[in-house]
Amino acid sequence: MFHFYQPITVRFSDLDLLGHVNNARYLTYMEQARIGYFAHLHLRRLRDPDVRFILADAHVAFRRPIFLDDEVRVGVRVTRLGNKSFTMHYRIEDASGDTVFATGETVQVCYDYQGQRAIPLPEAWRQRIAAFEDIPAFAEEPPSP
Amino acid sequence: MFHFYQPITVRFSDLDLLGHVNNARYLTYMEQARIGYFAHLHLRRLRDPDVRFILADAHVAFRRPIFLDDEVRVGVRVTRLGNKSFTMHYRIEDASGDTVFATGETVQVCYDYQGQRAIPLPEAWRQRIAAFEDIPAFAEEPPSP
Amino acid sequence: MFHFYQPITVRFSDLDLLGHVNNARYLTYMEQARIGYFAHLHLRRLRDPDVRFILADAHVAFRRPIFLDDEVRVGVRVTRLGNKSFTMHYRIEDASGDTVFATGETVQVCYDYQGQRAIPLPEAWRQRIAAFEDIPAFAEEPPSP
Amino acid sequence: MFHFYQPITVRFSDLDLLGHVNNARYLTYMEQARIGYFAHLHLRRLRDPDVRFILADAHVAFRRPIFLDDEVRVGVRVTRLGNKSFTMHYRIEDASGDTVFATGETVQVCYDYQGQRAIPLPEAWRQRIAAFEDIPAFAEEPPSP
Repeated sequence: MFHFYQPITVRFSDLDLLGHVNNARYLTYMEQARIGYFAHLHLRRLRDPDVRFILADAHVAFRRPIFLDDEVRVGVRVTRLGNKSFTMHYRIEDASGDTVFATGETVQVCYDYQGQRAIPLPEAWRQRIAAFEDIPAFAEEPPSP
Repeated sequence: MFHFYQPITVRFSDLDLLGHVNNARYLTYMEQARIGYFAHLHLRRLRDPDVRFILADAHVAFRRPIFLDDEVRVGVRVTRLGNKSFTMHYRIEDASGDTVFATGETVQVCYDYQGQRAIPLPEAWRQRIAAFEDIPAFAEEPPSP
Repeated sequence: MFHFYQPITVRFSDLDLLGHVNNARYLTYMEQARIGYFAHLHLRRLRDPDVRFILADAHVAFRRPIFLDDEVRVGVRVTRLGNKSFTMHYRIEDASGDTVFATGETVQVCYDYQGQRAIPLPEAWRQRIAAFEDIPAFAEEPPSP
Repeated sequence: MFHFYQPITVRFSDLDLLGHVNNARYLTYMEQARIGYFAHLHLRRLRDPDVRFILADAHVAFRRPIFLDDEVRVGVRVTRLGNKSFTMHYRIEDASGDTVFATGETVQVCYDYQGQRAIPLPEAWRQRIAAFEDIPAFAEEPPSP
């Protein structure tokens, strides 16, 4: 289901006083997976320095606590390529994939800092991701909630 | 709309290399607001040491970047008191309330670590929050997604 | 002894599983105090964008643990203005100043990113800090350790 | 010189707005190395739950900035076993060992939380570390600074 996994090393400083990984760190793990994914697809260098993907939305469903000695990986994939935005899904799990710690979802918007507005996704990104994930290169924007 | 606001001091170390507050810190700000809210309602001391609220779900909708010099506060309230869980809403905004940086939502489950299972919310919590927020002291669990 | 204090709000996420503020956060608190100090002296705007102070050395002596409910402030001052570097001292204490949690020291070097080399401190900085702290505007570099 | 190295994965969230790893994270990397070292020597399980090593002193000498793509490891060793405290040295470097990013030093004190006082190091710890590092099993406390 996922074609890319990012291994994560749990740090002692990720734990809060309840003894497990603090909830905010799940977004950090997902961010790390997102960056690893783009590097894996060689998508970092395509970027115009003025164009960035900004996070518009993030959701985490917590299932089980993560402890210091857990070996963690994050499965990550793009599930939708819209006009100016795209959606990613995540599964934070143990290295064997048997235990799911959390699932997550983020929406990124392609933003032109120079022009200060959302712009269509770069075509090269779109094609490369569509091929990697075997999904349509273009999907409608999701309806506004 | 919110009866409690938690002021937040943005730290230099909250910023990432894009120059604004890193996305994971929004969950930290919401956590800080949650803890401030419970302290404000004197709800921390009601707790059985073996009973804790664990985070089951978190959602953030990002609207505008937060910079180092922004004065930030988080409006937080309980919007639903279920049997074993409750829902909180957040608005991360500037100190005047004119600019909204993000909105968020979390679901907490009341968990008995000794018995390793979800248990009903303590009645004292339920009553105090219902009175403070002027919401029903008991609402059905939300349907599973 | 200190002419400037930076108040610090302890965050739940600053605590590690031992229940007190994690050791790395002391450097974050000191950094926050350093930035507040420069803002207080209106020194941020004097900076050439290519010139920055980079941290060359940091030392923390831990005395007592900091807990979530502690009201913390950091006293900070410049104790030495060298040619290309300066030294700051810190005292992390409770709001009354009665309890000292830690003391610290950092050395900053003035660095020209364009030229990639250490350069003398800006004269305006030097004068303003010397006047504020009532210390010599120029002191010899400390001997290499 | 080091018999143990802890690999560190630099996270995007470790970087601050200057584009390199924030100074406070160096203590996090050293903490991670310290924990890895104790795990490597099977020293975690020897511990009485009421006895902990608390950090008394930390020093970092920064040499070069660390960037996102750097492969980092931390060499760590115990250099002194005192009566109630011990000293560790660190070298934060790239994976090849050719580039040194920072060096550091920490002092830990063995503390009995039940009795609320510093106590002598557990004998098993002392012997195991002395053998691993080939250093004296007992050294005088350093003179107070």
